[in-house]
Amino acid sequence: MKVVITGGAGFIGQRLARSLLQRGRLTAPDGGEAGIDEILLYDVQVPAARPSWADERVVLRAGDISDTGEVASLIDRDDISVFHLASVVSGGGEKDFDLAMRVNLTGGLNVFEACRARAKKGAGLPRVVFASSIAVFGGSAMAPVVGDHAKQTPQTTYGITKSICELLVNDYTRKGFFDGRSARLPTVIVRPGKPNAAASSFVSGLFREPLNGEVCKIPVSEDTVMPLLGYRSIVDGFIALHEADGAALGDDRAVSLPSFTVTVGDLIDALRRVAHDRKLGEIVFEPDPFIQKICDGWPKDASYERATKLGLPKDASLDAIVENYIEDFL
Amino acid sequence: MKVVITGGAGFIGQRLARSLLQRGRLTAPDGGEAGIDEILLYDVQVPAARPSWADERVVLRAGDISDTGEVASLIDRDDISVFHLASVVSGGGEKDFDLAMRVNLTGGLNVFEACRARAKKGAGLPRVVFASSIAVFGGSAMAPVVGDHAKQTPQTTYGITKSICELLVNDYTRKGFFDGRSARLPTVIVRPGKPNAAASSFVSGLFREPLNGEVCKIPVSEDTVMPLLGYRSIVDGFIALHEADGAALGDDRAVSLPSFTVTVGDLIDALRRVAHDRKLGEIVFEPDPFIQKICDGWPKDASYERATKLGLPKDASLDAIVENYIEDFL
Repeated sequence: MKVVITGGAGFIGQRLARSLLQRGRLTAPDGGEAGIDEILLYDVQVPAARPSWADERVVLRAGDISDTGEVASLIDRDDISVFHLASVVSGGGEKDFDLAMRVNLTGGLNVFEACRARAKKGAGLPRVVFASSIAVFGGSAMAPVVGDHAKQTPQTTYGITKSICELLVNDYTRKGFFDGRSARLPTVIVRPGKPNAAASSFVSGLFREPLNGEVCKIPVSEDTVMPLLGYRSIVDGFIALHEADGAALGDDRAVSLPSFTVTVGDLIDALRRVAHDRKLGEIVFEPDPFIQKICDGWPKDASYERATKLGLPKDASLDAIVENYIEDFL
Repeated sequence: MKVVITGGAGFIGQRLARSLLQRGRLTAPDGGEAGIDEILLYDVQVPAARPSWADERVVLRAGDISDTGEVASLIDRDDISVFHLASVVSGGGEKDFDLAMRVNLTGGLNVFEACRARAKKGAGLPRVVFASSIAVFGGSAMAPVVGDHAKQTPQTTYGITKSICELLVNDYTRKGFFDGRSARLPTVIVRPGKPNAAASSFVSGLFREPLNGEVCKIPVSEDTVMPLLGYRSIVDGFIALHEADGAALGDDRAVSLPSFTVTVGDLIDALRRVAHDRKLGEIVFEPDPFIQKICDGWPKDASYERATKLGLPKDASLDAIVENYIEDFL
């Protein structure tokens, strides 16, 4: 079978592809297990060469997810699964509303329609795993702890488009157009490489830069709270959700992934514990009202009963997440 | 100022236009009151001649709301308000998914973008009142009483598109693109004329047909429950929501209108009470699993605290709704 990962050149997309290569098999549209013979990493930009971890099953393709015909051409087999990760991120979406709508809403619809076209051919239903976000929650009436049954009144265009795509995944699944599942992600740490336009980008930077001996600038206050999860659990969670029994998901296909709710202060403490005698770059607080405002609108605590019931993974501890990062990247 | 009513040739659209003509004024984008010099009733089909209740301020225009350029051409003044009522209804949406998406989602986006284009011209923000529906609620985890803070997991494409448009109205308002307000409608009674493709169409028929001496076929069981409201309160509610103080609405612009929660049996009792010695057409139960299934998915009870706080109107009683209908139409 073929696996399409939109946003596949990103950090999580590549980690997911790597895990799928190792795993080798997934549940196919016909309900049986099938070997993966192609993983297509589709993104707005892709590396010039196949990454070192990849073998010949991995195909890279750059393109525009808002192009309906192009997206249809990617989802060109009946024995297919799609992980739809492509997205303008939170800070980026606040700066360019039209781009967020084009990539996140039109792009999502393109992916969903392309999968629906495959289901029509009578070869079972392709499974679609959509990367939603805890940014679907927000607003003045937000519950103190947001979970699978909390109302979604997002306060960013990013969150709005994620919430809309959760609704669409539910309806396309209800209609029998594909077999959809949405994973609602908390902040993901520790992302290697460079900062991105996500408002939460600094949370990875807080570990990454000091461990590289570099100065890290934190744009929010030390008591800023966020639910987060390590990238290994995120990737394993995507795969577990893909493999989960559809009946156990029922008529709401969206599941909040497990998370730890911590403050920036907790993160700094964990970094110091895990670093042992490594020399760390300095952490400097440089408030940025634009970022602080977005973070202040995020949930103060998150629950994840459905994920627990479905057996979705959670890192052992905050320290374990940082230790994994050191093991994988340093 | 100009008022555009999409779906304006429908029952509620015409009643709304009539009330606006009588009222003569609305709060304009600049915040002051302005006289209404044009009411455009835009719909997929419009009457050949101006209705008897209308004067020369009323303009009728037929068209396709999924046509972006056409919708932009309707919203052609800065001193404008829009009541966006156009919609494929619940039963119709279940039978034609693509039509529901085109009319309700693409159509909604066209209206919202056209209003945003007006706001850009620096003449204040046009007010947009969007007709949402209690059909945004549903699913196996639905709360026993659904209100302004209940999670929306609709189980019809109609409900999904209404939920999506509530989210879009919130975000366009948050971004300062227009001043949006969504009214979440329960079942509206008593609609005159012919049955339509709404799953709730029989609820009006239950009064209309017997009062006309005609047989009425009820496609659901006598204990089927629904929250409902009379058309006079719906129309007055739209206008009150248009006039409401934006600050009182806050960051969630959607408000459940008041409603009565009743059974089909309650409706029949009310009909008999109000009819006095009128000879009534027979009521026959003819179960239709397609309609019963949609109605079974609807809320069993609804609350409306925000509407009460905003002073939105509610009919005095179920009997009063039926008496109004007799006064207005018989």
